[in-house]
Amino acid sequence: MHIKRTETHNTWDRDLPATAVLTPGDEVTVETVEASGGQLTAGSTAGDVATLDFGRINPVTGPFRIEGARPGDALVIDILDVSVGSWGWTACIPGFGLLADDFPDAHLRISAIADGRAELLPGLSVPVVPMIGTIGVAPPEAGQHSMVPPRRWGGNLDIRHIGPGARLVLPVGVDGALLSLGDAHAAMGDGEVSGTGVETDATVRLRVDVRPGAAPKTPIVETHPRTQRTGAALATTGVGPDLMAAAVDATRALIEEVTTRTGLAPADAYLLASVVADLKISEVVDVPNWVVSAHLELDHLVRT
Amino acid sequence: MHIKRTETHNTWDRDLPATAVLTPGDEVTVETVEASGGQLTAGSTAGDVATLDFGRINPVTGPFRIEGARPGDALVIDILDVSVGSWGWTACIPGFGLLADDFPDAHLRISAIADGRAELLPGLSVPVVPMIGTIGVAPPEAGQHSMVPPRRWGGNLDIRHIGPGARLVLPVGVDGALLSLGDAHAAMGDGEVSGTGVETDATVRLRVDVRPGAAPKTPIVETHPRTQRTGAALATTGVGPDLMAAAVDATRALIEEVTTRTGLAPADAYLLASVVADLKISEVVDVPNWVVSAHLELDHLVRT
Repeated sequence: MHIKRTETHNTWDRDLPATAVLTPGDEVTVETVEASGGQLTAGSTAGDVATLDFGRINPVTGPFRIEGARPGDALVIDILDVSVGSWGWTACIPGFGLLADDFPDAHLRISAIADGRAELLPGLSVPVVPMIGTIGVAPPEAGQHSMVPPRRWGGNLDIRHIGPGARLVLPVGVDGALLSLGDAHAAMGDGEVSGTGVETDATVRLRVDVRPGAAPKTPIVETHPRTQRTGAALATTGVGPDLMAAAVDATRALIEEVTTRTGLAPADAYLLASVVADLKISEVVDVPNWVVSAHLELDHLVRT
Repeated sequence: MHIKRTETHNTWDRDLPATAVLTPGDEVTVETVEASGGQLTAGSTAGDVATLDFGRINPVTGPFRIEGARPGDALVIDILDVSVGSWGWTACIPGFGLLADDFPDAHLRISAIADGRAELLPGLSVPVVPMIGTIGVAPPEAGQHSMVPPRRWGGNLDIRHIGPGARLVLPVGVDGALLSLGDAHAAMGDGEVSGTGVETDATVRLRVDVRPGAAPKTPIVETHPRTQRTGAALATTGVGPDLMAAAVDATRALIEEVTTRTGLAPADAYLLASVVADLKISEVVDVPNWVVSAHLELDHLVRT
């Protein structure tokens, strides 16, 4: 199945009609649009950033109804591949970003993307590490919900580890889950401090599965060493408007996951987390909700 | 020069007499004591954790007067080597740690350290990645200051990247700087969620230098790829009681450092940080001050 990037929506809404129906185990190829939704092009200048219509920001392709997915289930999404476009944009958007007060003026850089590098500035390129910024399911609450903040149901998580080879586990909030994705980045750092990565079109190949009754409290990522210079890792998350509370939630979720997987006592899992897990600020710009991830390399769970 | 681990103090105080005088360029070997200051041993049990005297926590060896260091200067500390002891401890300390409410009871694990591994639990070992938890200079404010929170002047930074091969740059607050260090860990994750790493004695070899008038606003670390599976990186920091403010401070410091090193426009440095720098919660337990680091691999600053 191949879903075109014309099939997008701009708010989360449980009442949107599905653009496709997937059965657990299905693979699907999904085209996604860069985060401006076509408002910026490879020829754009800073002036175009200043007049961005935020109502058209972060379009996602979908939603996809997953057969048999019910509230309380876990939706398991294996990211098989992410190929990015030939150009991307990175900007200071007035009023947006961690240092919005320091950088009040619009600023734009267009990167040419080729040979695994994105040329952010003339002569200064960064490695392409493709990732999906926004991926989520419909919240169970009625009405339209902004595409900007991430939630328990995923969405604009901006976790740079959601790339090729990663597995994302989301709680299902409504019948059929209603999965959508978009906002791919050719590169992004933990935090995404300006509020933008190298924003680009992408084509994503993924596989979906459902685990009945296994909804996690918050999204969980399993990373793949192929795209990260670490061993394969487990990343639990905290999502919300307070970084400290998000750090607590991510750590609690990690302890729960480790105890479930290994049978370790919770206090021992806590100590293990303290000595080998890393707290990362995945994003701190998608107002009003931030994401903290607790990363633990899976090697550390192996007993000899 | 070799400083024994008997030469310790338990509060930061600008009026402490120096235990040694170093000249810029000097190398010194410093023995440090594990963070309980001898209250715990390889034979201790959880009951010993419950009765820890916090007044004796985190002893540091020093202080060392650095000839010629003046307020406003930068003290540059190259960590040449850190060798850890043969055992370490990791604990849930009642009332301490990110999840103090979830883990009210004392809990202790003693790790045997050998062959590059620390055995946290029977059959479950973690790699030894030695680091220095507490390293700092005397604050300029008179009186005794607790050893627990880190400050602009360093101290209990608990940045896991301060290990062999790293360079730490601290602002000098008083004449002679008065450098001290201790609280080594055989392993610790970003965040140090339980409030403890694998706490151990260590022997540290370091070299000091002074850069007149170059005091950074907050501590800066340059990491070495030898002990981290990343390229050599620059890490700026934010230190304080609010994670968001610390994230802002760390990011501002990174932009300043990048613009100084490269001549990039600040807005471009901001975009570069957004796409390749990582925000890490270095520690979130040393009440009341937390540390957020902004890491940028130095390779990304090279223009072609």
